[in-house]
Amino acid sequence: MNINKLFGEEMIINDAIEEIIENVMAVSAETDEEHVNDMMDILTSSKNVFLLGQGRSGLVARAFAMRLMHLGISVYVVGETITPAIGEEDCLLAISGSGETSYIISTAMIAKKRGAKIVAVTSYEKSTLGTISDLIMHIKGRTKVDSEKNYIKRQMNGKHLSLSPLGTLFEVSTLIFLDALIAQLMDKMGKTEDDLKKRHTVLE
Amino acid sequence: MNINKLFGEEMIINDAIEEIIENVMAVSAETDEEHVNDMMDILTSSKNVFLLGQGRSGLVARAFAMRLMHLGISVYVVGETITPAIGEEDCLLAISGSGETSYIISTAMIAKKRGAKIVAVTSYEKSTLGTISDLIMHIKGRTKVDSEKNYIKRQMNGKHLSLSPLGTLFEVSTLIFLDALIAQLMDKMGKTEDDLKKRHTVLE
Amino acid sequence: MNINKLFGEEMIINDAIEEIIENVMAVSAETDEEHVNDMMDILTSSKNVFLLGQGRSGLVARAFAMRLMHLGISVYVVGETITPAIGEEDCLLAISGSGETSYIISTAMIAKKRGAKIVAVTSYEKSTLGTISDLIMHIKGRTKVDSEKNYIKRQMNGKHLSLSPLGTLFEVSTLIFLDALIAQLMDKMGKTEDDLKKRHTVLE
Amino acid sequence: MNINKLFGEEMIINDAIEEIIENVMAVSAETDEEHVNDMMDILTSSKNVFLLGQGRSGLVARAFAMRLMHLGISVYVVGETITPAIGEEDCLLAISGSGETSYIISTAMIAKKRGAKIVAVTSYEKSTLGTISDLIMHIKGRTKVDSEKNYIKRQMNGKHLSLSPLGTLFEVSTLIFLDALIAQLMDKMGKTEDDLKKRHTVLE
Repeated sequence: MNINKLFGEEMIINDAIEEIIENVMAVSAETDEEHVNDMMDILTSSKNVFLLGQGRSGLVARAFAMRLMHLGISVYVVGETITPAIGEEDCLLAISGSGETSYIISTAMIAKKRGAKIVAVTSYEKSTLGTISDLIMHIKGRTKVDSEKNYIKRQMNGKHLSLSPLGTLFEVSTLIFLDALIAQLMDKMGKTEDDLKKRHTVLE
Repeated sequence: MNINKLFGEEMIINDAIEEIIENVMAVSAETDEEHVNDMMDILTSSKNVFLLGQGRSGLVARAFAMRLMHLGISVYVVGETITPAIGEEDCLLAISGSGETSYIISTAMIAKKRGAKIVAVTSYEKSTLGTISDLIMHIKGRTKVDSEKNYIKRQMNGKHLSLSPLGTLFEVSTLIFLDALIAQLMDKMGKTEDDLKKRHTVLE
Repeated sequence: MNINKLFGEEMIINDAIEEIIENVMAVSAETDEEHVNDMMDILTSSKNVFLLGQGRSGLVARAFAMRLMHLGISVYVVGETITPAIGEEDCLLAISGSGETSYIISTAMIAKKRGAKIVAVTSYEKSTLGTISDLIMHIKGRTKVDSEKNYIKRQMNGKHLSLSPLGTLFEVSTLIFLDALIAQLMDKMGKTEDDLKKRHTVLE
Repeated sequence: MNINKLFGEEMIINDAIEEIIENVMAVSAETDEEHVNDMMDILTSSKNVFLLGQGRSGLVARAFAMRLMHLGISVYVVGETITPAIGEEDCLLAISGSGETSYIISTAMIAKKRGAKIVAVTSYEKSTLGTISDLIMHIKGRTKVDSEKNYIKRQMNGKHLSLSPLGTLFEVSTLIFLDALIAQLMDKMGKTEDDLKKRHTVLE
């Protein structure tokens, strides 16, 4: 597959966009219908959905939280002002590329002990976060763990180093996956864009 | 171009991912080297870069702000705790799909009056935000303005309604464009991924 | 009343604490039972309470929002991720010392047009915010409006300039008033501290 | 000392305000000039000041951060978008009533290992946070640790239960102490209110 020709002139910026798109395509290709349905079942059957992420993964968590709110799902972001105690009828969706962020793991452990379901969105199914989760949604990315390997590979290929530095591939791919999941949830819940608009904040 | 085959089985979620990728490709295709260079010149020559966005565009602004900070650029997010007064040596990068969000426009006007340069990231170059900006980075998206038109078109095509509801296409495409711009900025500024890591927060 | 003797040694820091306490006492002295009851009625009868404030007043709004959440009141902070559309069964509590912050006024106007009740917490009952509100809770403070006058008065008195710079007196007094209102709301709603603890976030 | 007469009529809200003021007075009375000077020395000699707190203590941290920024001190809030890596020329000011919040302790430990100075603002000097800190600023409060004891004492006195539930006394007293410290810092740094205004954000 030569996807290069689909892109603009050969600036670094276009190479970087291409690298991101290739990763997203790989994520799409490995999307499993049954697994997506299981994830949607947890999100729609929980009393409250708690979103958790750190740094840029935390921003992705918030972007997803907004859309879940637009769908009418009761959702909270861990760390925001009005987030209440989590309970056994709730679920925690934790986003961590490496699955080893200590704050994410300790928070997920507290939620698990209180009986909440844990959904992990991570590149590493065998990570600590993965092992304590009820459902793992694998999102391919170049995370901290394998960055050294890629460094050498890139050098050998004579390519630009770090077109997508740090967690970029995971974060962007997760955002796109979760945004696409919103379309699937709209279908499942029988919601139209107008329904979403009605819940959209009007206070700037 | 039949890009369908590159994607997974025909779930809505895959259609939605495809719609997003097609939009990102269109953004990549219209990327103009000179224009990107002008934007980078403003970002690297300003004393401080102020990031502005609302709702999910605000989250994109923050994700970009983190990477600019990693690059060593002095950057602030409008609305966060430690954001100081903007001045004439600074620039404001405002993200708004429609370019008509009243809060964004009034804030950009204040910045402009104080002598700061304005960079608009928007789908509408002729919007109010566009007309008051020193540089406009056009990012294709389906924004509020043309949603009605698309509604009918989709119905006619028998396609799923609202695969990318509300501002999704603009927001995701902007995030990817700005993340790709980071790669270009790394090259321009001679920064490696290790340089970014050194600035990355260590306090979870 | 010579309250000086109640305080520690004559450092500026103690003078500043004294100035704050004197302002809080004045706020307490003018607290009117009926008016407080009217405010509590709005807070407890609304479907959702929306909190609004900017800068440090916004932080006070959030501190109050946390306690309202602990009480089991459905509460949102304007500008946070999961804040939905405001409606006619809701109320907006807007905190602004001057009552003239343009963002606060324009947001309150939108809420008013949508039929929500407006509660203003301000030092200026005749301010624009005050005039559009259903209930005004006056909190004495030295706000931007009278700072020039005080500047001269302080100079004449040979006192330290700006023991409580900018909106400090209003912000701190508002926080204490609203925290004390929580005690009154606990009594009205028959809630104990243990009830609050049960709702307190457990996810750090 | 009968301070009751200084307050308004005997509503719960006035009792609660009184309880808060009494605590603030106790904080003022134990303020030690040398200790305050040591704290100011750390804040003004550090390359960057990092502010840390959770929940309502985190809001107090941000309110203080805004004023430090207004003073021209380079300040960051842990958890916000543009907060960079902490280093050995920096200090971390951590606010925790109990001094035992696990997230605060683990974050302070990371900062300490990287060579940063730690300033603890806490009610418990012998807490874990206290023991790892370079300087402890004791702020009296009724924190989680002694709430049971107070519960019984209050019952015996026939007083209202929980006029200042949870961490209220500590949080409010800390805000007032830190706001008063700003006045002392203005004097030390030779800053006027106009200097603060010049740094105050103009972008709403």
